[in-house]
Amino acid sequence: MSNPFFINCGPFNISEIFKVLNIELKIDENQIIEDIRDLFNAEKNCITFFHSKKYNELAKNTKASYCITTHNLKDYLPKNCTAIVVENVLISTSIVTQKFYPNSIEDEYDSSAIDINNTNFKNKVTTGKNVLVGDNVKIGKNCLIGHNTIIERNVQIGDNCKIGSNTIIRNSIIKNHVTILDNCIIGKKGFGFFPSKNKNLRYPHIGIVIINENCEIGCGSTIDRGSLSNTEIGKNTYLDNQIHIAHNVKIGENSILAGQVGIAGSSIIGNNVKIGGQAGISGHLKIGNNVEIGGGSGVIKDIPDNSKVIGYPAKNIREFLKNNK
Amino acid sequence: MSNPFFINCGPFNISEIFKVLNIELKIDENQIIEDIRDLFNAEKNCITFFHSKKYNELAKNTKASYCITTHNLKDYLPKNCTAIVVENVLISTSIVTQKFYPNSIEDEYDSSAIDINNTNFKNKVTTGKNVLVGDNVKIGKNCLIGHNTIIERNVQIGDNCKIGSNTIIRNSIIKNHVTILDNCIIGKKGFGFFPSKNKNLRYPHIGIVIINENCEIGCGSTIDRGSLSNTEIGKNTYLDNQIHIAHNVKIGENSILAGQVGIAGSSIIGNNVKIGGQAGISGHLKIGNNVEIGGGSGVIKDIPDNSKVIGYPAKNIREFLKNNK
Amino acid sequence: MSNPFFINCGPFNISEIFKVLNIELKIDENQIIEDIRDLFNAEKNCITFFHSKKYNELAKNTKASYCITTHNLKDYLPKNCTAIVVENVLISTSIVTQKFYPNSIEDEYDSSAIDINNTNFKNKVTTGKNVLVGDNVKIGKNCLIGHNTIIERNVQIGDNCKIGSNTIIRNSIIKNHVTILDNCIIGKKGFGFFPSKNKNLRYPHIGIVIINENCEIGCGSTIDRGSLSNTEIGKNTYLDNQIHIAHNVKIGENSILAGQVGIAGSSIIGNNVKIGGQAGISGHLKIGNNVEIGGGSGVIKDIPDNSKVIGYPAKNIREFLKNNK
Repeated sequence: MSNPFFINCGPFNISEIFKVLNIELKIDENQIIEDIRDLFNAEKNCITFFHSKKYNELAKNTKASYCITTHNLKDYLPKNCTAIVVENVLISTSIVTQKFYPNSIEDEYDSSAIDINNTNFKNKVTTGKNVLVGDNVKIGKNCLIGHNTIIERNVQIGDNCKIGSNTIIRNSIIKNHVTILDNCIIGKKGFGFFPSKNKNLRYPHIGIVIINENCEIGCGSTIDRGSLSNTEIGKNTYLDNQIHIAHNVKIGENSILAGQVGIAGSSIIGNNVKIGGQAGISGHLKIGNNVEIGGGSGVIKDIPDNSKVIGYPAKNIREFLKNNK
Repeated sequence: MSNPFFINCGPFNISEIFKVLNIELKIDENQIIEDIRDLFNAEKNCITFFHSKKYNELAKNTKASYCITTHNLKDYLPKNCTAIVVENVLISTSIVTQKFYPNSIEDEYDSSAIDINNTNFKNKVTTGKNVLVGDNVKIGKNCLIGHNTIIERNVQIGDNCKIGSNTIIRNSIIKNHVTILDNCIIGKKGFGFFPSKNKNLRYPHIGIVIINENCEIGCGSTIDRGSLSNTEIGKNTYLDNQIHIAHNVKIGENSILAGQVGIAGSSIIGNNVKIGGQAGISGHLKIGNNVEIGGGSGVIKDIPDNSKVIGYPAKNIREFLKNNK
Repeated sequence: MSNPFFINCGPFNISEIFKVLNIELKIDENQIIEDIRDLFNAEKNCITFFHSKKYNELAKNTKASYCITTHNLKDYLPKNCTAIVVENVLISTSIVTQKFYPNSIEDEYDSSAIDINNTNFKNKVTTGKNVLVGDNVKIGKNCLIGHNTIIERNVQIGDNCKIGSNTIIRNSIIKNHVTILDNCIIGKKGFGFFPSKNKNLRYPHIGIVIINENCEIGCGSTIDRGSLSNTEIGKNTYLDNQIHIAHNVKIGENSILAGQVGIAGSSIIGNNVKIGGQAGISGHLKIGNNVEIGGGSGVIKDIPDNSKVIGYPAKNIREFLKNNK
């Protein structure tokens, strides 16, 4: 994953990583670890994690030098990858990610944001009243930004974009010709954490939000940034009002989501997909290309290409109509 | 439809309309066209459109001089109305509407909005901090407007209205004694467009939002303005928080909508209707008077007067309870 | 119920209360009434109300001196409690509550709110731009408040809290280590009123919102304050984006609510409860401890401890899966 915004505080010696994990291992303690990445994207000198049999195939082929995993899973790893066996893979992964990316846990308000009229954007961008801009922001040509909107740190906006009023954006790349309407929150940390009695443990979110060319995002929508991968909306996809897109979700091109739709974390939606109002899609699902999902449906399993589904749980529309004559 | 806000750039000679549609027709090219309206509201010297057999009866009686339609539908039109046969009626209608109403396509932030303390409303309206007001706004007696709220261009607010904080209103008529709570977006363009690969075509929205006497609109709600007709909320109807009302919807009097309800485009809801939380109503439906819809229901067909329905798809409540013992 | 914020305009002589209710009763007119409370919390010299057989047991043991009730219910009351028989208990209760707490009916914007830089909080709290603070606000140590946020009157915020941008809070107690993200509305009046043709009658809301230690509230969420009891979120409970919590709801500790969940008025949710995205819970229900509710479910009856339910209406997950093979 490309991660343009969160600063990697590494590299670290593997011994420093063992230290934060409270682990003693008899291995070469001079190995340098450059980054933490998922099984697929990890390269040599990276540490990765492997917590579910579902990812066996990826694990077998990982290039990572180290992998946080369990006793039961460790034998799937290739010879080049040393297993670090822990009790809870996700909590340990969280601890190591936090070491590499300490600024990715909390989303405090951006204290670097100042009035856009006191920045170099003053004469370059057409804006409403009370617009704030944070550090590390780029804005292209012919953009409009509405009243009271806050472009927080780590945002790239392309040419010919229209951002509404009362909207907040951070950690996001907005391509050309994108329209984002009022009251949206884009690029905040996702709802990813490890439940723990009395005090949950927040998981780092080093992913970003990418909104591609010609998209439109409706009023009051929220699009969370990814944890270890990105949240991405494909070209010319339109979202209606009050939609929630959770972290790591990917939506294809030319898709249409009607009002109040919600997509849970890490689901992947294809191209030319139409989703009716208030429909919900559970996490970690794959919705194919050219799929139509009826309004109000609850999708709880993968949907193949070219299907029309409806209902709760969402079924083939013919079956639904037969059952509901 | 009365359309008090969008300026008609017509009249146009019919030849100019053929030109934007790339059509050549051998007819009197000196005919003047004053407006584009729907089949019912079109008068002589108007152009209208007819794209679905569903509207046969309206088509037969239209007074319009011209009608954008298809080869299959054109014979339903009366003698006074000349058919303009096109490939895609809605796209052609969009092009012609855009010619008459060029400012109705996009909802850029209102650059005419300025601090209310720099306007004539300063001593007339009681407001919080940082309130902005755009062009062509009227506000009645004894109104309150909360902090950071933006009354964008083309708004009429009656007497004794209470508008909350962080709310945005445009292209709307708010009658007397209406309460609108915080974070609402009222009068933005609806989610109406023609899907088109790589770049969807936005449909003009020349309708407005009308909120009648004694209504209350809850926090975080969105009410979109109509495309060719208005979106309207009847007297003394109460909406809870996080409700979405799509374009062209009409809701009757004395109705109650609980939190997170969504109503898709062009549906018509009667008087004395009660809709439970999170219920959704598909587009283009007719819900009768005195109907009760259970929380979480998904309504996908018309509901007659005095019915109680629940479930997905919403059914008579007795049938639902029998099936779910 | 402790009610720290709404000022009790009493005590009143019982004769004054009869007067607002348009009732003549031959009883000792010198009795002083100090407060209006629910059946359980009412003490001697309080007035209470009893409108449904469901509350028989509470009625039998109330310590109140007077009770607004119906002819059919009045005989459940103990000897110490004089029945005031009315036609509509809830409307009469509303009228009396309004006499004691006249400021609890409407939620006009807080005109006492001023720029935080003009208050004593200036050097004590770290804030973004354009933050407003109203009367009777306390803020603890090490708190952050984001841009454009309004802390309206009657708010207590503990130590180490993080409040996002564009958020509005009133009539609420926020304990230590709480995170509230952007665009939330917390502590507004609930959706409680008596439907009445032409002009509904708003019910007073003298309850508050209590958010306990270590909670997190996601972007765009709304949490309404209670009517006669409080709305409360237990310790270390996490709410995702776009959630709606209605008045009088109580949620236990260590619970997790995913995006777009809605909980209707007066429902009580246990500890360690997990609620999937878009699920809805009807009003006045009791959800036990350790319950898991699937995403998109509609819960319309009580759920016992340790259950896993899913569907609409929500059923035991095994039954659901059997029916939906």
